[in-house]
Amino acid sequence: MPVLAPSLDRETFLALPLAEQYHTVRAFTEHLTEPLTTEDYVVQSMADVSPTKWHLAHTTWFWETFVLGEYADGYALYDEAYPFLFNSYYVQAGERHCRAQRGYLSRPTVAEVFAYRAHVDEAMQRLLAGIPGDADSTLAEVVRVGLNHEQQHQELMVTDIKHVFSVNPLRPAYRERSVTPAPDPGPMQWIAFDAGLHEVGYLPERDGVFSFDNETPRHRAFVETFALADRLVTCGEFMAFMEDDGYERAELWLSEGFATVQANEWTEPFYWEQRDGEWQHFTLAGMQPVDPHAPLTHISYFEADAFARWAGARLPTEFEWEVASEGLPMTGNFAEDDVLHPMPPEFVASGGDGAPAAPQLRQLFGDVWEWTRSQYSPYPGYNPLPGALGEYNGKFMSNQFVLRGGSCATSRTHIRRTYRNFFPADATWQFTGIRLAKDL
Amino acid sequence: MPVLAPSLDRETFLALPLAEQYHTVRAFTEHLTEPLTTEDYVVQSMADVSPTKWHLAHTTWFWETFVLGEYADGYALYDEAYPFLFNSYYVQAGERHCRAQRGYLSRPTVAEVFAYRAHVDEAMQRLLAGIPGDADSTLAEVVRVGLNHEQQHQELMVTDIKHVFSVNPLRPAYRERSVTPAPDPGPMQWIAFDAGLHEVGYLPERDGVFSFDNETPRHRAFVETFALADRLVTCGEFMAFMEDDGYERAELWLSEGFATVQANEWTEPFYWEQRDGEWQHFTLAGMQPVDPHAPLTHISYFEADAFARWAGARLPTEFEWEVASEGLPMTGNFAEDDVLHPMPPEFVASGGDGAPAAPQLRQLFGDVWEWTRSQYSPYPGYNPLPGALGEYNGKFMSNQFVLRGGSCATSRTHIRRTYRNFFPADATWQFTGIRLAKDL
Amino acid sequence: MPVLAPSLDRETFLALPLAEQYHTVRAFTEHLTEPLTTEDYVVQSMADVSPTKWHLAHTTWFWETFVLGEYADGYALYDEAYPFLFNSYYVQAGERHCRAQRGYLSRPTVAEVFAYRAHVDEAMQRLLAGIPGDADSTLAEVVRVGLNHEQQHQELMVTDIKHVFSVNPLRPAYRERSVTPAPDPGPMQWIAFDAGLHEVGYLPERDGVFSFDNETPRHRAFVETFALADRLVTCGEFMAFMEDDGYERAELWLSEGFATVQANEWTEPFYWEQRDGEWQHFTLAGMQPVDPHAPLTHISYFEADAFARWAGARLPTEFEWEVASEGLPMTGNFAEDDVLHPMPPEFVASGGDGAPAAPQLRQLFGDVWEWTRSQYSPYPGYNPLPGALGEYNGKFMSNQFVLRGGSCATSRTHIRRTYRNFFPADATWQFTGIRLAKDL
Amino acid sequence: MPVLAPSLDRETFLALPLAEQYHTVRAFTEHLTEPLTTEDYVVQSMADVSPTKWHLAHTTWFWETFVLGEYADGYALYDEAYPFLFNSYYVQAGERHCRAQRGYLSRPTVAEVFAYRAHVDEAMQRLLAGIPGDADSTLAEVVRVGLNHEQQHQELMVTDIKHVFSVNPLRPAYRERSVTPAPDPGPMQWIAFDAGLHEVGYLPERDGVFSFDNETPRHRAFVETFALADRLVTCGEFMAFMEDDGYERAELWLSEGFATVQANEWTEPFYWEQRDGEWQHFTLAGMQPVDPHAPLTHISYFEADAFARWAGARLPTEFEWEVASEGLPMTGNFAEDDVLHPMPPEFVASGGDGAPAAPQLRQLFGDVWEWTRSQYSPYPGYNPLPGALGEYNGKFMSNQFVLRGGSCATSRTHIRRTYRNFFPADATWQFTGIRLAKDL
Repeated sequence: MPVLAPSLDRETFLALPLAEQYHTVRAFTEHLTEPLTTEDYVVQSMADVSPTKWHLAHTTWFWETFVLGEYADGYALYDEAYPFLFNSYYVQAGERHCRAQRGYLSRPTVAEVFAYRAHVDEAMQRLLAGIPGDADSTLAEVVRVGLNHEQQHQELMVTDIKHVFSVNPLRPAYRERSVTPAPDPGPMQWIAFDAGLHEVGYLPERDGVFSFDNETPRHRAFVETFALADRLVTCGEFMAFMEDDGYERAELWLSEGFATVQANEWTEPFYWEQRDGEWQHFTLAGMQPVDPHAPLTHISYFEADAFARWAGARLPTEFEWEVASEGLPMTGNFAEDDVLHPMPPEFVASGGDGAPAAPQLRQLFGDVWEWTRSQYSPYPGYNPLPGALGEYNGKFMSNQFVLRGGSCATSRTHIRRTYRNFFPADATWQFTGIRLAKDL
Repeated sequence: MPVLAPSLDRETFLALPLAEQYHTVRAFTEHLTEPLTTEDYVVQSMADVSPTKWHLAHTTWFWETFVLGEYADGYALYDEAYPFLFNSYYVQAGERHCRAQRGYLSRPTVAEVFAYRAHVDEAMQRLLAGIPGDADSTLAEVVRVGLNHEQQHQELMVTDIKHVFSVNPLRPAYRERSVTPAPDPGPMQWIAFDAGLHEVGYLPERDGVFSFDNETPRHRAFVETFALADRLVTCGEFMAFMEDDGYERAELWLSEGFATVQANEWTEPFYWEQRDGEWQHFTLAGMQPVDPHAPLTHISYFEADAFARWAGARLPTEFEWEVASEGLPMTGNFAEDDVLHPMPPEFVASGGDGAPAAPQLRQLFGDVWEWTRSQYSPYPGYNPLPGALGEYNGKFMSNQFVLRGGSCATSRTHIRRTYRNFFPADATWQFTGIRLAKDL
Repeated sequence: MPVLAPSLDRETFLALPLAEQYHTVRAFTEHLTEPLTTEDYVVQSMADVSPTKWHLAHTTWFWETFVLGEYADGYALYDEAYPFLFNSYYVQAGERHCRAQRGYLSRPTVAEVFAYRAHVDEAMQRLLAGIPGDADSTLAEVVRVGLNHEQQHQELMVTDIKHVFSVNPLRPAYRERSVTPAPDPGPMQWIAFDAGLHEVGYLPERDGVFSFDNETPRHRAFVETFALADRLVTCGEFMAFMEDDGYERAELWLSEGFATVQANEWTEPFYWEQRDGEWQHFTLAGMQPVDPHAPLTHISYFEADAFARWAGARLPTEFEWEVASEGLPMTGNFAEDDVLHPMPPEFVASGGDGAPAAPQLRQLFGDVWEWTRSQYSPYPGYNPLPGALGEYNGKFMSNQFVLRGGSCATSRTHIRRTYRNFFPADATWQFTGIRLAKDL
Repeated sequence: MPVLAPSLDRETFLALPLAEQYHTVRAFTEHLTEPLTTEDYVVQSMADVSPTKWHLAHTTWFWETFVLGEYADGYALYDEAYPFLFNSYYVQAGERHCRAQRGYLSRPTVAEVFAYRAHVDEAMQRLLAGIPGDADSTLAEVVRVGLNHEQQHQELMVTDIKHVFSVNPLRPAYRERSVTPAPDPGPMQWIAFDAGLHEVGYLPERDGVFSFDNETPRHRAFVETFALADRLVTCGEFMAFMEDDGYERAELWLSEGFATVQANEWTEPFYWEQRDGEWQHFTLAGMQPVDPHAPLTHISYFEADAFARWAGARLPTEFEWEVASEGLPMTGNFAEDDVLHPMPPEFVASGGDGAPAAPQLRQLFGDVWEWTRSQYSPYPGYNPLPGALGEYNGKFMSNQFVLRGGSCATSRTHIRRTYRNFFPADATWQFTGIRLAKDL
């Protein structure tokens, strides 16, 4: 097996034989557990969070259930009790343990879960041997779902362990990291787009061999003229909102948003704390000063929407975002960079004679998931996958908002320009942030 | 003042002098209270429901606050305490009494509330004297908002008192009514529409002098090919869903929908009860047998969505509905008909030589609000009204679904083809129903 | 029928023919409703509160179920639906409507409930004609339970309507009353009692022909030496506790008490409000200044216990209270006095030569129910009544504290020195107050 | 240091030098952790349960705070963060971490907590060197509180880990143990006691050098005649209650008890499960068949009270229990026996000529805590300890019931005949059981 190649881009990755793709993804999952003690694997700090141990076992159950159980002749269940324990929400795949009680399970132990992984990995390697990366068999298709599924859980492992550590009064660091102040990114600039009829959604020849079902079918959408901000909103810009009593002014908020603010007594972004008159926030490198020039993150849809209204702007729709992203390279700060925190924007050099360069869209991929004002709905003609895998996306199409672009905890080989992430409007424990849009 | 004209159509109504429009609407509000005893005005049977007394006073407060207080020189508040008691959710119009506690107020009494109405009506008539119905002053604009606001509360008065009576073990009737079985509407038929770019949203020259801000601006939307059912789903069709274990089969439901079903132990539509082996439901005429040929109502979005999936169809988008409604007359079963229950569909005569006529869209207006799969979002370029009236619509644009077409409790002079009603996906106490759509 | 005789003492009352006792009690119930509008009868302002209409009907149901249904030949139910609506908690008497939803019932109307009362009263008068007050038949026994039951509901009608009015921002008065400042009652004095073995519990030849089952059997209890305060704690004394941060100091409170304080954000007694820098409280005569010399009321057990600890004292046990009450007259401020608020203490004249008189126990009966530190438990050999009436007292013997002495809302003919009232430790909507005790 | 002496009786234990007492208790705490994996130490399976790790650290914090911090010159806090993390409820000892979130802490790790224990143990041994077991210094007094405190947490460690394992679908065993069916204990027999005035409460010359403050002062109580069952209620006797619809019959229950049954859908004792038509229950040796002859355990006060009423009996008062226990040896099945489950009763040999022997009280100590009908109240003249240690007992004197006699998870050197344990009426996760009493 090749060693782990963290800087692999999506195109190169998709060209690897399937067994190597599998190894790469599984190894990266385990790479993410390296900083943890045995105790860290056990804790569930809120209902949305799962213990690391559960993520390790659930992703393995996925391979066992949807791949080995279907395609590997004579494969026998590793442990009869595991399907009940490690099914997440696939109703058609059988009964499952209550989500809110995943933190009540001390057994199986961490060592037992790693043994389970090793057992399944061995069977998977046998099964996948010799299959090219672009095979179009049903097996290959399900394996691609499994790889992308495991990559989604990698992101959750990062955001969940961040939450676990954050509720501990000791505020332990996942991994120490030296942090230096970011340079001033300068004023936000606007990039205008004309109205027009566009094709949106997954395009295999451009986006590679895989997409989730919710990105399909490709279809036409009319997008009116709009402008998009060249960069993400910074912490400093959000501080100005706070200083202007943003959290107290009902007129800036959706009704449900203001009710959420009041019920939860929100007065600052999630993970922020005032210490000795200074704003600090909890990061995977422990408590750190909030850097006014760095991108804002861990922000709910409600906060993003209120901030935008305060700023005289709005959030983009998902199709505005997708149209704007056309032709841009999918580079950015991703999970493989091991930073696990949004980075300051790269700057665009000024023009030749000292004049500022034309504004360019920056930070579109990686760093933070960008909230759109689009509620998560099926595309015209949408069909979920058949069977239990059809529960993957379609059944969540109510009361969620679409996010685009991936985050610092997303794998570089996982993101696509048509990728539709979705979360409820009050979710804050993901690396979510704000890019503004405007009517013209 | 003219006598009440219940069968007035919207066009005729909008041509009346403003004072007569005002009188018509206010009188219809009071017409709806005729069957009530004093005690009936007081009760709030759940948080979503308001006491009749509160509706009577709140609509009056609206006139006092947004019209008399702004435009009637020297108008003095009728009672200093009322703004606090009868503001609903207009944060910018001041503090207000807790919504969930509206049923705790025995005072002011019903008689005092009617006196308040009379006082405000007199001042309003003085203010509006001589203003034509199509005046375009800011006063006239706010009056139109007030009229439409009061009409919305008329609908709520009907659905709220229905709920109040339904939780009373005596199941009292609001108004007795003889009910006869409906004829079989025959199989559902599909009407196809081509793909195309359409203008959607409020068009003054077609839709009359008023719309809510959420119907604007008129803009372009691309709609793919689709088919729409010619009529509403019937109670009998929903019984087949129930007999096919519809409420138990998770794969038919949105995830959140199935969680709602289980948390609330839903096993039949709201207001339905099994009595002596027969399905009955509570209506404003008391308990009645469920008629299999009559349109289904009091259905949540979640149930509508699950039923559609079971039927191999889906719900329409709001633009599909709007495009399909073009050119159809806005006739139907409305509040002024005093039926207050969906009616069986009218039939379309067969063709000349005994052949069935081409299917036509029926029941599009009136009877029941039709759930669309469109989540309630701002139109491109949307701008709420300035000031407190801007809280009317825009602040509810999260986690609600759009409904179209009006119901049997909607005023005939209130509905428009661009009208966007919205409720959360679990709401059932409104007259909501299902029209199916399909991809082609 | 004799006219209402509000100043009747218990002894005289018990000597009346049974039909006159019945009339007296029923008429007093209706006397209490005189200040109410129709709307006031409908409201339930919290789960512990019942609408006035419900009290009127429930007490009537009690007569119908336990007396007329059993003893009046050929008596037919007034309305088949009423037993379900108006049973409170008698499981053995059949199913009943949910307590928390009593305020959802607009029907039967107030007039219908009064007609129900009149119908039952007529049947009762026929049944009771000619039966002497001290009859010892089972009928007479059940009638006495019914009379005492109705008197308990009279007290609840008063405390419940007080709560209903208190949550109304208009703070309406039940009955206007001129209130004058009370004179200073002087320092609290202590009256000592020797240790000894006492008989406690109901003694028919002393306490009259009726008691509840929970006061029996009379039995022996050893009471150690103790001292009892000569008077009730005043509002002014409680203000000193508040000024000394009484509500913030955990060490003064029971653990569960402090949790209750924090969960409910209690910072002053129930019904108190700070207005313009002055303490006011809601009374049945509307908002009034808190009089520092008047007895404190609407205090929970938790507050009473914390105050006592702060004062270096404790609450008495129920047997200390009962022993101390021996030989004292049962005079005081009761419901028939129509004051419905605790009164300042009467003073004891000084001794002949200007020396202060020996302290005497005052305010033991009437004014406020006095919390004891005794948790509500069965007496040795306790036997509840047979059948549904056995549910009256015994089934509440967990997690309640005993109160003694009656209040300003208790009927003078209802109280006994062995009477055991009981409420949960956090209850505040009754007229409850504090008398201190001490170890010696 | 001497080796652990599990069979030590209380008298011998109290004669050991204080340092040996300390070592014995601390070593037994760690003995109880031997069967656990690292993961097992972390989980909190409900709010009442604490993670094993927390118990280990909290008991250590107790020594550090109340002994080392006060009496060991120059002792420095082991870790500044630990007092916040490991204070339980001692308000006067400072702020503390939220109880319900103890399971969210993966750090400090198990190894770090054991290091903390070792550090404190070393300092304690230095401090206690040479102090005799019966020393009467304030240091010795606080050490005795600390030892008894740690012994209470030993019992909680056992009952808490039992709960943690029970919610795991794998139902892991804490320690395997071979279980054989118990012999039939024969019919319950009654032992009568005469009425009389008794002294109750802690008597140092009889009960040894230590008691909790809630057992004092010794005082007089009059106890009427009563009879006590010779043995505990068995599982088989409770099955008869269940078969007689005990859980469905409201008339058998306290009102609050029946509400608890319905809210929690209780239909059998805690930890019981029907498997293949047979009753099994979860024990620390894993799932086991319920043995009808073995003592019943994990029963709430509400169930105990209802069972007694069904059996035509009642629960004893705490003074009846204490009076009955006079002169009986404190032998039984305790934590040091490593069984951790109630054992079948020992039998009393028949009389000389084949006649049954006179009944004798059995199982009074150990096996299960016996619910009494006495609500937990202060004794006359009760004074809590000064300072934070005064929060140990007195602040819980509301809404709890007294239990007597110790259980199979109680240390043999910990129990006294005057010992008052207390739990809320719905608690079931302790080893609680039933002994019946009767009036005569």
